[in-house]
Amino acid sequence: MLGRKSFRASLLVGLLLCSAATGHGGTSPALVLGTLALFLVAAKVVGDLFERVKQPAVLGELLAGVLIGNLPLVGVTALSFVTTDPAMGLLAEIGVVILLFEVGLESDVSQMLRVGASAFLVATVGVVVPMALGYFGARWILPGATWHAHVFIGAILSATSVGITARVLKDLGKIQSTEGRIILGAAVIDDVLGLIVLAVVQGIVLGAAKPGGGLDAMGIAGIVGKSFLFLGGAIALGRPLSRWVFRAAQVLQVRGLLLAFSVAICFAFSFAAHAVELAPIVGAFAAGLILDEVSYKNLLGREEHGLEDQVRPLAAIFVPVFFVVTGAKVDLTVLADSTILGLAGVLTAAAIIGKQACSFAVLERGVDRLSVGLGMIPRGEVGLIFASVGTSLILPSGQPVVDKRTYAAAVVMVIATTLVTPPILSFSLGRKRKAPGYST
Amino acid sequence: MLGRKSFRASLLVGLLLCSAATGHGGTSPALVLGTLALFLVAAKVVGDLFERVKQPAVLGELLAGVLIGNLPLVGVTALSFVTTDPAMGLLAEIGVVILLFEVGLESDVSQMLRVGASAFLVATVGVVVPMALGYFGARWILPGATWHAHVFIGAILSATSVGITARVLKDLGKIQSTEGRIILGAAVIDDVLGLIVLAVVQGIVLGAAKPGGGLDAMGIAGIVGKSFLFLGGAIALGRPLSRWVFRAAQVLQVRGLLLAFSVAICFAFSFAAHAVELAPIVGAFAAGLILDEVSYKNLLGREEHGLEDQVRPLAAIFVPVFFVVTGAKVDLTVLADSTILGLAGVLTAAAIIGKQACSFAVLERGVDRLSVGLGMIPRGEVGLIFASVGTSLILPSGQPVVDKRTYAAAVVMVIATTLVTPPILSFSLGRKRKAPGYST
Repeated sequence: MLGRKSFRASLLVGLLLCSAATGHGGTSPALVLGTLALFLVAAKVVGDLFERVKQPAVLGELLAGVLIGNLPLVGVTALSFVTTDPAMGLLAEIGVVILLFEVGLESDVSQMLRVGASAFLVATVGVVVPMALGYFGARWILPGATWHAHVFIGAILSATSVGITARVLKDLGKIQSTEGRIILGAAVIDDVLGLIVLAVVQGIVLGAAKPGGGLDAMGIAGIVGKSFLFLGGAIALGRPLSRWVFRAAQVLQVRGLLLAFSVAICFAFSFAAHAVELAPIVGAFAAGLILDEVSYKNLLGREEHGLEDQVRPLAAIFVPVFFVVTGAKVDLTVLADSTILGLAGVLTAAAIIGKQACSFAVLERGVDRLSVGLGMIPRGEVGLIFASVGTSLILPSGQPVVDKRTYAAAVVMVIATTLVTPPILSFSLGRKRKAPGYST
Repeated sequence: MLGRKSFRASLLVGLLLCSAATGHGGTSPALVLGTLALFLVAAKVVGDLFERVKQPAVLGELLAGVLIGNLPLVGVTALSFVTTDPAMGLLAEIGVVILLFEVGLESDVSQMLRVGASAFLVATVGVVVPMALGYFGARWILPGATWHAHVFIGAILSATSVGITARVLKDLGKIQSTEGRIILGAAVIDDVLGLIVLAVVQGIVLGAAKPGGGLDAMGIAGIVGKSFLFLGGAIALGRPLSRWVFRAAQVLQVRGLLLAFSVAICFAFSFAAHAVELAPIVGAFAAGLILDEVSYKNLLGREEHGLEDQVRPLAAIFVPVFFVVTGAKVDLTVLADSTILGLAGVLTAAAIIGKQACSFAVLERGVDRLSVGLGMIPRGEVGLIFASVGTSLILPSGQPVVDKRTYAAAVVMVIATTLVTPPILSFSLGRKRKAPGYST
C-alpha cells in the first residue's frame, strides 16, 4: 500500500491540470498544519511565561522560534523545512502583513500627519547616522578592505524593520501615542529612503567596477517617483475605496463581506507596494490607515462585528507564525566564530547607537525621545537584502563587496537588534505609567 | 537597479540560514497576496449574484474559479500558477480544514451518534453501488479493456468528497438536521472505506500483474486498525483535551488563547489524520466535534467572544480560497474531446445514480432521503488519487490499468459531480421550508 495521503498531498497541487503538474517540491500541507499547531501552542505558552515576568510576549515567540530553528544542532531535523519552505514563508508574510494592517486600523491618518515633520526627520537621521557610523566602524575594524566595502557596510545598517516595533507598540497599546505615530511614520519613509540608498550605493560600486558606470540619477528619480505614486495613489483612492467597501458591505447579501473586502484591499495594497518595490507591509499599513473605521462607525448598522474585532482572530493565528519563523531563521552556529563576532559587535553597536540620534530629530515637546530611538533599532530582512546584493557585486579585484565573514556578521547584527528591542523598548515605554498587559 | 523587492521575496525564504537557501522556485508572496485579493473579491461578488438568483454562493465561487483557471485559453497566463503553486494549495487546504472544523463545531456528538447506524449503512451502500455501476458501465463502454481496468474504474467512483456538501449544508443552516448529520457521519466512514477499497483493488491488480502478489489481508487490517486508532483516540482524548483548553484559556494571561489553542488542536488533528492516511479534513471535523463549545459555554466568563464567532473570520477569508482554487483546477479543454466525453458521461451517470441508492439506506423515518443521496454525489480529489494510482499500475500487457483517456474522463466526472451538487442539493433541502440565505 502506497502512502495514499502523502500522495494526495502532492497531487492536490495541480491535479486536475494533471499535465501541468511540475515538481515544485513543496512540503506536504498536512505537515505544515502540524507544524503550525506546534508553533501556536509554543508561541502562546512561551508568550504567557514572558508576560508573567513582565517581558513582551513577542520576545517569547522569537525565542520559541530560535529553539525550534536550532533543533538540528541537537540532531532533530524534522522541522528544518520551516526556514526554507516557501509555504511557511508565505504564512509568515501573511502574518506580518496582517499585523501592520491591524496597526494601520488602530492608527489615525490626521494624527499621523500631525507628526509628519518629525517622522521625516527621524527617518532621515536614522538612515544617515548609522550609515556614517557603519562606514567609520568598518574602516576601523577592516582596514584592509576597499572603501566600497566600507560604504556598503554602512548601507546595510541604514534600514529599520518595523514589524518588531509595531508589535511591541501594539502589545502595550501605544500605537496612538505620539512616540508610536512618529516611529510608524518614520518606518514608512525609511522604506523609501532605503530604496534610494541601495540604488546610490550600488551605482557608486558599479561605477567603480565598470568604466562608464556610475550613479544613475534617472534610475533614482524613477524609484522616488514610483514610491510617491504609490503613497499618493493610496491617499487619493483611500477615501472613496473605503466608503465604497463599507457601503457594499451593507448592500450585498453574503455575510463576512466587510472583512473579505477589507482583507482584499490589504492584500492588494501589499501587492501594489511590492510592485513599486516597497515592502508589502508598507502597503498593508496604508490599507489599514485608509479603512480606519472610526469615520465609518455610523455606517455599520448590521449584525457584523466591527472590522478590528474581525481582524483580531486572523492576527491571533498568523502573527505568531511570523515571529516564530523569524526566530527560527536565527542560526546559532554563526555565534561560534570569534572573528565574525568581533565584526558583528562593531556593526551591532553602530546599528544601535546610530539610531539613537533619532531622539534628537523629534520636533514635538514632551515626547519620550529615548523610546523613539529604541523603536528604530530593529533591522530585519532589509539589511540582509542589502548584504546579499553586496555579495553579488564583484569588484575589479575579483572580490565581492561583501564577503562571507561580513555577511555572517550582518546576520548576527540583525539577530541582536531584533532580540534586544522588545525588552528594552517595552521597559522604556512602560517607565512613565503602567500599561495593561495585552497581546495579540 | 535590481528588482529589490522581488529579490526580497525570494530571500525571505531562508535568508538568515543563507547557506540553506535552496532554489525551491516558489511564487513571490506578494503575488500570492495580490491573487488572494482578487479571489476574495471575485468570490464574494459572484457569490452575491448567485444568492440573488437563489443559487448557493459556493457555486458562484466555483465558477469564478473556473473562469480564473481557464484564463490561459484566452491568452492570459498571469494566474496559471494558481493550480500548481504549493503555497496556493496549502491555503486552499487551510480553507477546507477550517470549513470542516467549523462544521464540526456546529455539530453535536451525541446527535451524530444517534444516526450512526444510518450513516454507516449510507456510507457502505454509497461505496458498493457506484463501484458496481462503474464496473458494469466500464465493461459496456470499454469492452476491449481488461477486467482490472473495469474494477479500477468502479473504485474511482466509490469515494465521496464532503467539502462541497458541508458548505451547502452550512450555507443553509442544515448541519444539525438529521439529513446533515447522516451525510457528515457517512462522509467520515466513507473515507475509511475508501482506504480499504484502494488497498483491495490495488492488491487484486498487483496480484494479477505479479506472480506471488495478491490481496494483502494484513495490510488491510493495518489500515482499518490505524483508522480506528485515530477515531478512538480522538474520542478518548477529546473530552479532557477540550476541558483543558477552555481552562487554560481562563488561566493564561495572553489574549486570543482560546482561538489559538483550538486552531492548534484542529491543525494537529488534521496532521494526525493524515499520518494514519485519512483525509486531513476528517481530523479537522473530529477536532470541531470535540471542541463543540455548547458544553463549555458556562466556563467562558471573560471578554473573549465564543469560539465559533472567532473562527468565522478565518473561514470568511480562507474557505473561498478552497472553492476558487478547486474551480480553477477545472480544465475546460478536456471537454473538447468527444470520445472522452462519452466515457465521462457514463462515469458521471454511474457516479450520480449510484449514490442515490444511499436514499434507501437511511433507517430513520421522516428523513429527506433524496437530499441524503444528493449530498453524497460530489467526488473530489479522492477519485482522482485513485485514478492516478491506476495510471502508475502497469499490467503484464505493458498497459497502465487507467489510461490517459480514462483519467481525463474521471476528471470530467469529478468536475460534473462537483458543480451539479450545490444547486440541486440546495433546491432539494429548501423544498420543505424556506431557510434564510446564509453564507460564510
